[in-house]
Amino acid sequence: MQDKAGTTDIKKAMEFIIEIDGMKNIFRQTKIVGNVRFENDAEHSWHLSMMAYVLRPFFGEDFTKKNGDIDVSRAVKMLLLHDIVELYAGDTYCYDAEAAKDKSEREQAAAVKIFAMLPADTGSDFMALWQEFDAEQTADAIFAAIMDKIQPLLLNYENSGLSWVEHGITRAQVEKRMGLALEHAPKELRDYVSGIIDGAAEKGYLL
Amino acid sequence: MQDKAGTTDIKKAMEFIIEIDGMKNIFRQTKIVGNVRFENDAEHSWHLSMMAYVLRPFFGEDFTKKNGDIDVSRAVKMLLLHDIVELYAGDTYCYDAEAAKDKSEREQAAAVKIFAMLPADTGSDFMALWQEFDAEQTADAIFAAIMDKIQPLLLNYENSGLSWVEHGITRAQVEKRMGLALEHAPKELRDYVSGIIDGAAEKGYLL
Repeated sequence: MQDKAGTTDIKKAMEFIIEIDGMKNIFRQTKIVGNVRFENDAEHSWHLSMMAYVLRPFFGEDFTKKNGDIDVSRAVKMLLLHDIVELYAGDTYCYDAEAAKDKSEREQAAAVKIFAMLPADTGSDFMALWQEFDAEQTADAIFAAIMDKIQPLLLNYENSGLSWVEHGITRAQVEKRMGLALEHAPKELRDYVSGIIDGAAEKGYLL
Repeated sequence: MQDKAGTTDIKKAMEFIIEIDGMKNIFRQTKIVGNVRFENDAEHSWHLSMMAYVLRPFFGEDFTKKNGDIDVSRAVKMLLLHDIVELYAGDTYCYDAEAAKDKSEREQAAAVKIFAMLPADTGSDFMALWQEFDAEQTADAIFAAIMDKIQPLLLNYENSGLSWVEHGITRAQVEKRMGLALEHAPKELRDYVSGIIDGAAEKGYLL
Protein backbone atom coordinates (compact mmCIF):
# COMPACT_ATOMS: atom_id res chain seq x y z
CA MET A 1 0.00 0.00 0.00
CA GLN A 2 1.08 3.58 -0.72
CA ASP A 3 -0.03 6.82 0.87
CA LYS A 4 -0.77 10.01 -1.06
CA ALA A 5 2.92 10.90 -1.20
CA GLY A 6 3.63 7.50 -2.76
CA THR A 7 5.44 6.07 0.27
CA THR A 8 4.85 2.34 0.62
CA ASP A 9 3.93 0.80 3.95
CA ILE A 10 7.11 -1.29 4.06
CA LYS A 11 9.22 1.83 3.57
CA LYS A 12 7.29 3.59 6.35
CA ALA A 13 7.77 0.62 8.65
CA MET A 14 11.50 0.55 7.97
CA GLU A 15 11.90 4.29 8.46
CA PHE A 16 10.13 4.02 11.81
CA ILE A 17 12.40 1.13 12.81
CA ILE A 18 15.48 3.21 12.03
CA GLU A 19 14.04 6.32 13.71
CA ILE A 20 13.38 4.56 17.03
CA ASP A 21 17.01 3.43 17.17
CA GLY A 22 17.38 6.90 18.70
CA MET A 23 15.89 5.50 21.93
CA LYS A 24 19.36 4.07 22.57
CA ASN A 25 20.62 7.64 22.91
CA ILE A 26 17.94 8.96 25.28
CA PHE A 27 19.38 8.74 28.75
CA ARG A 28 17.45 8.57 31.99
CA GLN A 29 18.43 9.77 35.47
CA THR A 30 18.90 6.23 36.75
CA LYS A 31 22.16 4.36 36.33
CA ILE A 32 22.47 0.69 35.38
CA VAL A 33 23.64 -1.73 38.09
CA GLY A 34 27.29 -1.12 38.92
CA ASN A 35 26.76 2.62 38.54
CA VAL A 36 28.84 2.75 35.38
CA ARG A 37 26.57 4.91 33.24
CA PHE A 38 23.03 6.21 32.82
CA GLU A 39 20.39 3.85 31.50
CA ASN A 40 18.87 4.58 28.10
CA ASP A 41 15.20 4.32 27.14
CA ALA A 42 15.58 1.27 24.90
CA GLU A 43 17.20 -0.96 27.51
CA HIS A 44 14.89 0.44 30.20
CA SER A 45 11.85 -0.60 28.14
CA TRP A 46 13.33 -4.06 27.65
CA HIS A 47 13.97 -4.43 31.37
CA LEU A 48 10.40 -3.43 32.28
CA SER A 49 8.99 -5.96 29.81
CA MET A 50 11.03 -8.78 31.31
CA MET A 51 9.87 -7.67 34.76
CA ALA A 52 6.27 -7.86 33.57
CA TYR A 53 6.61 -11.53 32.63
CA VAL A 54 8.47 -12.36 35.83
CA LEU A 55 6.16 -10.48 38.20
CA ARG A 56 2.83 -11.27 36.50
CA PRO A 57 2.32 -14.51 38.50
CA PHE A 58 2.34 -12.52 41.76
CA PHE A 59 -0.71 -10.50 40.68
CA GLY A 60 -3.64 -12.57 41.85
CA GLU A 61 -7.35 -12.22 42.54
CA ASP A 62 -7.02 -9.19 44.80
CA PHE A 63 -5.63 -7.16 41.92
CA THR A 64 -8.11 -8.55 39.39
CA LYS A 65 -11.13 -7.85 41.59
CA LYS A 66 -10.13 -4.23 41.99
CA ASN A 67 -8.73 -3.49 38.53
CA GLY A 68 -9.83 -6.22 36.10
CA ASP A 69 -7.87 -8.96 34.32
CA ILE A 70 -4.29 -8.42 33.24
CA ASP A 71 -3.32 -9.31 29.67
CA VAL A 72 0.44 -9.45 30.16
CA SER A 73 1.13 -9.33 26.39
CA ARG A 74 -0.76 -6.06 26.05
CA ALA A 75 1.03 -4.68 29.10
CA VAL A 76 4.38 -5.67 27.60
CA LYS A 77 3.50 -3.97 24.32
CA MET A 78 2.65 -0.81 26.28
CA LEU A 79 5.95 -1.02 28.13
CA LEU A 80 7.93 -1.48 24.94
CA LEU A 81 6.48 1.66 23.40
CA HIS A 82 5.64 3.80 26.44
CA ASP A 83 8.81 5.91 26.26
CA ILE A 84 8.99 6.33 22.47
CA VAL A 85 7.55 9.84 22.84
CA GLU A 86 10.83 10.77 24.55
CA LEU A 87 12.50 10.60 21.12
CA TYR A 88 11.19 14.12 20.62
CA ALA A 89 10.02 15.13 24.11
CA GLY A 90 13.17 14.02 25.99
CA ASP A 91 13.29 12.28 29.36
CA THR A 92 11.56 14.18 32.14
CA TYR A 93 13.05 13.35 35.55
CA CYS A 94 10.20 12.08 37.72
CA TYR A 95 11.14 14.39 40.62
CA ASP A 96 11.48 17.52 38.45
CA ALA A 97 8.34 19.56 39.20
CA GLU A 98 9.22 22.33 36.76
CA ALA A 99 9.65 20.01 33.76
CA ALA A 100 6.47 18.14 34.73
CA LYS A 101 4.36 21.23 33.95
CA ASP A 102 4.44 20.89 30.15
CA LYS A 103 5.40 17.19 30.05
CA SER A 104 1.98 16.05 28.90
CA GLU A 105 1.79 18.63 26.11
CA ARG A 106 5.31 17.85 24.86
CA GLU A 107 4.67 14.11 24.91
CA GLN A 108 1.30 14.37 23.18
CA ALA A 109 2.88 16.31 20.29
CA ALA A 110 5.72 13.78 20.12
CA ALA A 111 3.28 10.86 20.02
CA VAL A 112 1.41 12.38 17.08
CA LYS A 113 4.69 12.94 15.23
CA ILE A 114 6.31 9.56 15.80
CA PHE A 115 3.26 7.34 15.34
CA ALA A 116 2.33 9.18 12.12
CA MET A 117 5.48 7.70 10.57
CA LEU A 118 3.89 4.24 10.66
CA PRO A 119 1.40 2.55 8.33
CA ALA A 120 -2.01 3.84 9.50
CA ASP A 121 -3.32 0.76 11.36
CA THR A 122 -0.12 0.20 13.34
CA GLY A 123 0.14 3.91 14.07
CA SER A 124 -3.33 4.16 15.57
CA ASP A 125 -2.84 0.92 17.51
CA PHE A 126 0.38 2.27 19.09
CA MET A 127 -1.19 5.65 19.80
CA ALA A 128 -4.17 4.06 21.58
CA LEU A 129 -1.90 1.85 23.70
CA TRP A 130 0.36 4.76 24.60
CA GLN A 131 -2.65 6.86 25.65
CA GLU A 132 -4.00 3.96 27.70
CA PHE A 133 -0.63 3.56 29.43
CA ASP A 134 -0.41 7.27 30.07
CA ALA A 135 -3.88 7.42 31.64
CA GLU A 136 -3.10 4.63 34.18
CA GLN A 137 -6.76 3.59 34.42
CA THR A 138 -7.03 0.05 33.02
CA ALA A 139 -5.68 -3.14 34.62
CA ASP A 140 -2.97 -3.48 31.96
CA ALA A 141 -1.90 0.14 32.31
CA ILE A 142 -1.82 -0.01 36.12
CA PHE A 143 0.17 -3.23 36.02
CA ALA A 144 2.58 -1.74 33.45
CA ALA A 145 2.95 1.48 35.45
CA ILE A 146 3.86 -0.51 38.55
CA MET A 147 6.79 -2.05 36.62
CA ASP A 148 7.86 1.43 35.51
CA LYS A 149 7.77 2.74 39.09
CA ILE A 150 9.53 -0.19 40.74
CA GLN A 151 12.45 -0.65 38.32
CA PRO A 152 14.29 2.61 39.09
CA LEU A 153 13.80 1.89 42.80
CA LEU A 154 15.55 -1.46 42.38
CA LEU A 155 18.41 0.06 40.37
CA ASN A 156 18.89 3.02 42.69
CA TYR A 157 18.97 0.74 45.69
CA GLU A 158 21.51 -1.56 44.03
CA ASN A 159 23.60 1.52 43.26
CA SER A 160 23.71 2.66 46.91
CA GLY A 161 21.06 5.29 46.23
CA LEU A 162 23.49 7.56 44.42
CA SER A 163 20.93 9.07 42.06
CA TRP A 164 18.69 9.92 45.07
CA VAL A 165 21.60 11.40 47.01
CA GLU A 166 22.70 13.50 44.02
CA HIS A 167 19.23 15.01 43.67
CA GLY A 168 18.54 15.21 47.42
CA ILE A 169 15.45 13.00 47.20
CA THR A 170 13.44 12.39 50.38
CA ARG A 171 11.75 9.25 51.62
CA ALA A 172 8.38 11.01 51.25
CA GLN A 173 9.07 11.73 47.58
CA VAL A 174 9.89 8.08 46.88
CA GLU A 175 6.83 6.90 48.77
CA LYS A 176 4.64 9.27 46.79
CA ARG A 177 6.23 8.05 43.56
CA MET A 178 5.62 4.42 44.62
CA GLY A 179 1.99 5.22 45.45
CA LEU A 180 0.56 3.09 42.70
CA ALA A 181 2.78 0.13 43.55
CA LEU A 182 2.10 0.46 47.27
CA GLU A 183 -1.63 0.72 46.66
CA HIS A 184 -2.31 -1.80 43.88
CA ALA A 185 0.55 -4.31 43.92
CA PRO A 186 0.02 -7.70 45.56
CA LYS A 187 1.08 -7.97 49.20
CA GLU A 188 4.35 -9.84 48.55
CA LEU A 189 5.51 -7.18 46.11
CA ARG A 190 4.27 -4.32 48.30
CA ASP A 191 6.20 -5.73 51.25
CA TYR A 192 9.29 -6.06 49.08
CA VAL A 193 9.03 -2.45 47.93
CA SER A 194 8.42 -1.21 51.49
CA GLY A 195 11.43 -3.19 52.63
CA ILE A 196 13.62 -1.49 50.05
CA ILE A 197 12.38 1.97 51.04
CA ASP A 198 13.03 1.17 54.70
CA GLY A 199 16.48 -0.13 53.83
CA ALA A 200 17.27 2.93 51.71
CA ALA A 201 16.22 5.27 54.53
CA GLU A 202 18.23 3.31 57.13
CA LYS A 203 21.34 3.36 54.99
CA GLY A 204 21.05 7.11 54.43
CA TYR A 205 20.27 6.88 50.70
CA LEU A 206 17.19 9.04 51.25
CA LEU A 207 16.87 12.33 53.13
CA MET B 1 6.31 -19.92 48.14
CA GLN B 2 9.75 -20.98 49.30
CA ASP B 3 12.18 -23.48 47.84
CA LYS B 4 14.20 -25.98 49.90
CA ALA B 5 16.83 -23.37 50.67
CA GLY B 6 14.08 -21.11 52.06
CA THR B 7 14.27 -18.55 49.24
CA THR B 8 10.86 -17.04 48.49
CA ASP B 9 9.60 -16.71 44.94
CA ILE B 10 9.46 -12.92 45.14
CA LYS B 11 13.11 -12.83 46.23
CA LYS B 12 14.06 -15.14 43.33
CA ALA B 13 12.13 -12.97 40.89
CA MET B 14 13.87 -9.84 42.12
CA GLU B 15 17.32 -11.42 42.03
CA PHE B 16 16.70 -12.49 38.43
CA ILE B 17 15.56 -8.95 37.55
CA ILE B 18 18.78 -7.50 38.96
CA GLU B 19 20.94 -10.22 37.35
CA ILE B 20 19.60 -9.57 33.84
CA ASP B 21 20.52 -5.90 34.16
CA GLY B 22 23.87 -7.26 33.00
CA MET B 23 22.43 -7.53 29.47
CA LYS B 24 23.06 -3.78 29.24
CA ASN B 25 26.79 -4.55 29.40
CA ILE B 26 26.91 -7.31 26.79
CA PHE B 27 28.00 -5.68 23.56
CA ARG B 28 27.36 -6.96 20.07
CA GLN B 29 29.40 -6.45 16.90
CA THR B 30 26.83 -4.08 15.40
CA LYS B 31 26.84 -0.38 16.17
CA ILE B 32 23.75 1.73 16.82
CA VAL B 33 22.70 4.22 14.12
CA GLY B 34 25.22 7.05 13.92
CA ASN B 35 28.05 4.61 14.53
CA VAL B 36 28.74 6.05 17.97
CA ARG B 37 29.10 2.80 19.91
CA PHE B 38 28.32 -0.91 19.91
CA GLU B 39 24.78 -2.02 20.58
CA ASN B 40 24.09 -3.97 23.77
CA ASP B 41 21.86 -7.03 24.13
CA ALA B 42 19.14 -5.29 26.15
CA GLU B 43 18.47 -2.53 23.62
CA HIS B 44 18.89 -5.00 20.74
CA SER B 45 16.14 -7.20 22.22
CA TRP B 46 13.89 -4.17 22.63
CA HIS B 47 14.47 -3.12 19.04
CA LEU B 48 13.63 -6.58 17.67
CA SER B 49 10.41 -6.66 19.69
CA MET B 50 9.29 -3.34 18.28
CA MET B 51 10.15 -4.60 14.79
CA ALA B 52 7.98 -7.66 15.40
CA TYR B 53 4.89 -5.51 16.07
CA VAL B 54 5.63 -3.23 13.13
CA LEU B 55 6.41 -5.96 10.60
CA ARG B 56 3.78 -8.53 11.69
CA PRO B 57 1.08 -7.07 9.37
CA PHE B 58 3.29 -7.82 6.35
CA PHE B 59 3.28 -11.56 7.11
CA GLY B 60 0.21 -12.85 5.32
CA GLU B 61 -1.27 -16.12 4.11
CA ASP B 62 1.82 -17.25 2.19
CA PHE B 63 3.80 -17.38 5.41
CA THR B 64 0.96 -18.95 7.40
CA LYS B 65 0.35 -21.71 4.86
CA LYS B 66 4.00 -22.73 4.93
CA ASN B 67 4.79 -22.22 8.60
CA GLY B 68 1.55 -21.92 10.58
CA ASP B 69 -0.04 -18.98 12.40
CA ILE B 70 2.07 -16.32 14.07
CA ASP B 71 1.28 -15.35 17.66
CA VAL B 72 3.14 -12.05 17.74
CA SER B 73 3.02 -11.84 21.56
CA ARG B 74 4.78 -15.21 21.90
CA ALA B 75 7.33 -14.14 19.28
CA VAL B 76 7.96 -10.91 21.18
CA LYS B 77 8.45 -12.84 24.42
CA MET B 78 11.00 -15.04 22.65
CA LEU B 79 12.78 -11.99 21.29
CA LEU B 80 12.91 -10.34 24.70
CA LEU B 81 14.61 -13.34 26.26
CA HIS B 82 16.46 -14.92 23.33
CA ASP B 83 19.82 -13.36 24.17
CA ILE B 84 19.69 -13.75 27.95
CA VAL B 85 21.99 -16.77 27.68
CA GLU B 86 24.70 -14.34 26.58
CA LEU B 87 24.89 -13.13 30.18
CA TYR B 88 27.14 -16.14 30.78
CA ALA B 89 27.92 -17.36 27.25
CA GLY B 90 28.87 -13.94 25.79
CA ASP B 91 27.97 -12.63 22.34
CA THR B 92 29.11 -14.85 19.49
CA TYR B 93 29.66 -12.85 16.29
CA CYS B 94 27.47 -14.40 13.61
CA TYR B 95 30.34 -14.60 11.11
CA ASP B 96 32.84 -16.11 13.56
CA ALA B 97 33.09 -19.78 12.50
CA GLU B 98 35.52 -20.69 15.28
CA ALA B 99 33.31 -19.37 18.11
CA ALA B 100 30.28 -21.01 16.50
CA LYS B 101 31.69 -24.47 17.21
CA ASP B 102 30.87 -24.56 20.93
CA LYS B 103 28.21 -21.82 20.87
CA SER B 104 25.32 -24.23 21.37
CA GLU B 105 27.00 -25.98 24.31
CA ARG B 106 27.94 -22.70 26.01
CA GLU B 107 24.47 -21.28 25.55
CA GLN B 108 22.69 -24.41 26.77
CA ALA B 109 24.68 -24.34 30.01
CA ALA B 110 23.99 -20.62 30.40
CA ALA B 111 20.24 -21.18 29.88
CA VAL B 112 20.13 -23.81 32.62
CA LYS B 113 22.00 -21.50 35.00
CA ILE B 114 20.04 -18.29 34.39
CA PHE B 115 16.54 -19.75 34.19
CA ALA B 116 17.13 -21.77 37.36
CA MET B 117 17.25 -18.47 39.26
CA LEU B 118 13.52 -17.98 38.63
CA PRO B 119 10.47 -19.40 40.39
CA ALA B 120 10.00 -22.86 38.82
CA ASP B 121 6.99 -22.19 36.53
CA THR B 122 8.46 -19.03 35.03
CA GLY B 123 11.86 -20.67 34.67
CA SER B 124 10.53 -23.61 32.67
CA ASP B 125 8.32 -21.35 30.56
CA PHE B 126 11.34 -19.20 29.63
CA MET B 127 13.51 -22.25 28.98
CA ALA B 128 10.92 -23.78 26.62
CA LEU B 129 10.55 -20.52 24.71
CA TRP B 130 14.29 -20.05 24.42
CA GLN B 131 14.69 -23.61 23.10
CA GLU B 132 11.87 -23.06 20.62
CA PHE B 133 13.51 -19.84 19.40
CA ASP B 134 16.86 -21.55 19.12
CA ALA B 135 15.47 -24.44 17.04
CA GLU B 136 13.87 -22.09 14.45
CA GLN B 137 11.16 -24.62 13.56
CA THR B 138 7.81 -23.11 14.59
CA ALA B 139 6.05 -20.16 12.94
CA ASP B 140 6.73 -17.91 15.95
CA ALA B 141 10.41 -18.88 16.09
CA ILE B 142 10.90 -18.41 12.34
CA PHE B 143 9.16 -15.03 12.46
CA ALA B 144 11.27 -14.00 15.48
CA ALA B 145 14.49 -15.21 13.85
CA ILE B 146 13.74 -13.13 10.76
CA MET B 147 13.64 -10.01 12.98
CA ASP B 148 16.95 -11.02 14.54
CA LYS B 149 18.58 -11.48 11.11
CA ILE B 150 17.23 -8.31 9.50
CA GLN B 151 17.96 -5.81 12.28
CA PRO B 152 21.79 -5.89 12.09
CA LEU B 153 21.49 -5.62 8.29
CA LEU B 154 19.48 -2.41 8.69
CA LEU B 155 21.90 -0.97 11.25
CA ASN B 156 25.02 -1.91 9.27
CA TYR B 157 23.58 -0.39 6.13
CA GLU B 158 22.68 2.82 7.97
CA ASN B 159 26.23 2.92 9.31
CA SER B 160 27.81 2.75 5.83
CA GLY B 161 28.58 -0.94 6.31
CA LEU B 162 31.46 -0.22 8.68
CA SER B 163 31.07 -3.39 10.73
CA TRP B 164 31.10 -5.48 7.50
CA VAL B 165 34.13 -3.61 6.16
CA GLU B 166 36.01 -4.05 9.45
CA HIS B 167 35.47 -7.81 9.39
CA GLY B 168 35.85 -8.16 5.60
CA ILE B 169 32.38 -9.67 5.18
CA THR B 170 31.34 -10.79 1.68
CA ARG B 171 28.00 -10.46 -0.07
CA ALA B 172 27.71 -14.26 -0.08
CA GLN B 173 28.12 -14.37 3.71
CA VAL B 174 25.35 -11.81 4.22
CA GLU B 175 23.07 -13.63 1.78
CA LYS B 176 23.65 -16.89 3.62
CA ARG B 177 22.95 -15.17 6.94
CA MET B 178 19.74 -13.69 5.49
CA GLY B 179 18.69 -17.11 4.17
CA LEU B 180 15.72 -17.46 6.49
CA ALA B 181 14.49 -13.94 5.72
CA LEU B 182 14.99 -14.37 1.99
CA GLU B 183 13.22 -17.73 2.05
CA HIS B 184 10.32 -17.20 4.46
CA ALA B 185 9.65 -13.47 4.64
CA PRO B 186 6.76 -12.00 2.64
CA LYS B 187 7.62 -10.65 -0.81
CA GLU B 188 7.61 -6.96 0.18
CA LEU B 189 10.08 -7.59 2.98
CA ARG B 190 12.21 -9.93 0.89
CA ASP B 191 12.45 -7.32 -1.84
CA TYR B 192 13.40 -4.71 0.73
CA VAL B 193 16.17 -6.93 2.14
CA SER B 194 17.45 -7.80 -1.34
CA GLY B 195 17.48 -4.11 -2.18
CA ILE B 196 19.63 -3.38 0.85
CA ILE B 197 22.07 -6.15 -0.02
CA ASP B 198 22.31 -4.86 -3.60
CA GLY B 199 22.81 -1.33 -2.34
CA ALA B 200 25.49 -2.43 0.14
CA ALA B 201 27.35 -4.30 -2.60
CA GLU B 202 27.13 -1.36 -5.02
CA LYS B 203 28.42 1.06 -2.42
CA GLY B 204 31.35 -1.20 -1.62
CA TYR B 205 30.20 -2.05 1.92
CA LEU B 206 30.53 -5.76 1.12
CA LEU B 207 33.45 -7.62 -0.49
